[in-house]
Amino acid sequence: MDEFERIDAMIAPLARGHAGTFDLTNDAAVLAPSPGNEIVLTKDMMAEGVHFLPDDPPEQVAAKLLRTNLSDLAAMGARARGYLLGLGLDGGRDEDWLARFFEGLAQDQTLFDVFLLGGDTIVARKGILTLSLTAVGEIRAGAALTRSGAREGDIVAVSGTIGDAALGLLVRRGELGGLSAGDRAWLEDRYRLPQPRMALGQGLVGLAHAALDVSDGLMADAGHLARRSGMRIELAWDQVPLSAAARRAVGMAPELRDTVVGGGDDYELLFTLPQERWDALLRVAQDCDTPVTRIGRCRAGQGVAILDASGENFAPAIGGWRHGEQG
Amino acid sequence: MDEFERIDAMIAPLARGHAGTFDLTNDAAVLAPSPGNEIVLTKDMMAEGVHFLPDDPPEQVAAKLLRTNLSDLAAMGARARGYLLGLGLDGGRDEDWLARFFEGLAQDQTLFDVFLLGGDTIVARKGILTLSLTAVGEIRAGAALTRSGAREGDIVAVSGTIGDAALGLLVRRGELGGLSAGDRAWLEDRYRLPQPRMALGQGLVGLAHAALDVSDGLMADAGHLARRSGMRIELAWDQVPLSAAARRAVGMAPELRDTVVGGGDDYELLFTLPQERWDALLRVAQDCDTPVTRIGRCRAGQGVAILDASGENFAPAIGGWRHGEQG
Repeated sequence: MDEFERIDAMIAPLARGHAGTFDLTNDAAVLAPSPGNEIVLTKDMMAEGVHFLPDDPPEQVAAKLLRTNLSDLAAMGARARGYLLGLGLDGGRDEDWLARFFEGLAQDQTLFDVFLLGGDTIVARKGILTLSLTAVGEIRAGAALTRSGAREGDIVAVSGTIGDAALGLLVRRGELGGLSAGDRAWLEDRYRLPQPRMALGQGLVGLAHAALDVSDGLMADAGHLARRSGMRIELAWDQVPLSAAARRAVGMAPELRDTVVGGGDDYELLFTLPQERWDALLRVAQDCDTPVTRIGRCRAGQGVAILDASGENFAPAIGGWRHGEQG
Repeated sequence: MDEFERIDAMIAPLARGHAGTFDLTNDAAVLAPSPGNEIVLTKDMMAEGVHFLPDDPPEQVAAKLLRTNLSDLAAMGARARGYLLGLGLDGGRDEDWLARFFEGLAQDQTLFDVFLLGGDTIVARKGILTLSLTAVGEIRAGAALTRSGAREGDIVAVSGTIGDAALGLLVRRGELGGLSAGDRAWLEDRYRLPQPRMALGQGLVGLAHAALDVSDGLMADAGHLARRSGMRIELAWDQVPLSAAARRAVGMAPELRDTVVGGGDDYELLFTLPQERWDALLRVAQDCDTPVTRIGRCRAGQGVAILDASGENFAPAIGGWRHGEQG
């Protein structure tokens, strides 16, 4: 077996037995959306040294690649169906790394009920490992959530906790001392392993006016929502949900507040909905075991403000993160 | 504007105004298959130095990336709808190169009636340009052509001419002398710019028992068909359709016969159908201005044979090409 055949053999189980994949022996895959549904498509890439590091556990690299894409589906309210994988290998990738990478995908396939629809493997002797993934979901025709539907008076809310991943990246870079080893590990894990909010995303359909996932950072993504909806968004810092570890970090170093709301990679859902649907939303959130927190309001105007306890707008520096508007 | 914003501005027109793309301002795209249709998905990657060279015209790199994927849709009998683009940039890519790359995509969007559904751009300072494309098509539910349907007695046929791209690669490497400049340019163009057989592919639905596109080379792809269908395929060398330039090349150097049937990147369709449908197939082929040629038969057994004029099986060396079974 040559290199490609060995990789094909490792990939095959990820598709085997799933209708429409033809066990990866065909030119393309076929996917039938459920009756009345349309297809939702998104594609993210990751490169070694930029989005992950050579010594990151390969299972987690795989999971992050898949999950960042799934989070985009969640933001639209879509149910995940499957994915296509592009492996741009460099010469130095050993078989153990690949086996663990595929094992990570296999585990997440079970967790998120998706399967491999197809893809491509290339090898360039020069270069670095480059990964590409296209996630495919479905949603009732016309029901997809967008960034443009927020209305004046809407509540602005967010799932989970904000800022953990950005703090986790500081941990990983050795730039966040003073925390316990447990807190550091927990934050770093939040950076490495996004938890896409699939159930909540689907639950938002029919309730939320607008939604997106927080990948560029709370302030930047609230800015996307505000701009696309033609609204002003006002957030309250003291309502932004923080994990216990993030609270301790900000308690020690208050300037980390900017990291929390300016950093990225949260993969939580940020959404708006009218006040009268809030109770229904809480029931949905409870049903899918996902905490949600009101953090602000949509008002006439434009831009994003975040007010501290004294009602003052502090404008955190945004930057460093970049996923782009799409995704 | 930073680098990403400049690229976003160049990409935006490829999606603008197309339903479901949200002008690339959303987390994902939405695509509704026509009633009664299902979605067909395929993904190919290309890397600089492997699938294209730094001095290749960027428009042609873009076209090749899109067209190799479209050819996979054609092989399934699918109609192309749209595509997602992954740009893995290295540090050294200048704006002119990118502008021409996107111009190539814009031209092909018109030619093939597709549009950009979404994608991602990443920049790694280290590394090489890595491109990824997911093509999305649709086909009547259950009608997709596969590689596994060939039956005993089927005619084996192919579209267009075979071997031009493999000879064109030799030209490009400076390894094919003796031909006129016109022949050399023509063959090299066939290597650089695939012509996916979209109309014929759709026309094969209901006529062909099995189909695929010739990307690994005639012998290798006939081998895929034979294996997946549990058949033996016997081809006749003197029926394999050659372009005038390829005929002249083989006339000068008979050993190039092996390159013609063993090389790859033809992106023609190879398919099987029962004898009684041949006349109907010819009418379809005429309707879409695509020449088709009978080159062999399916028989009980396994493997692929190619017989020369004296009825002897010559086994050309296969290798060097690699796209994998999928795609």
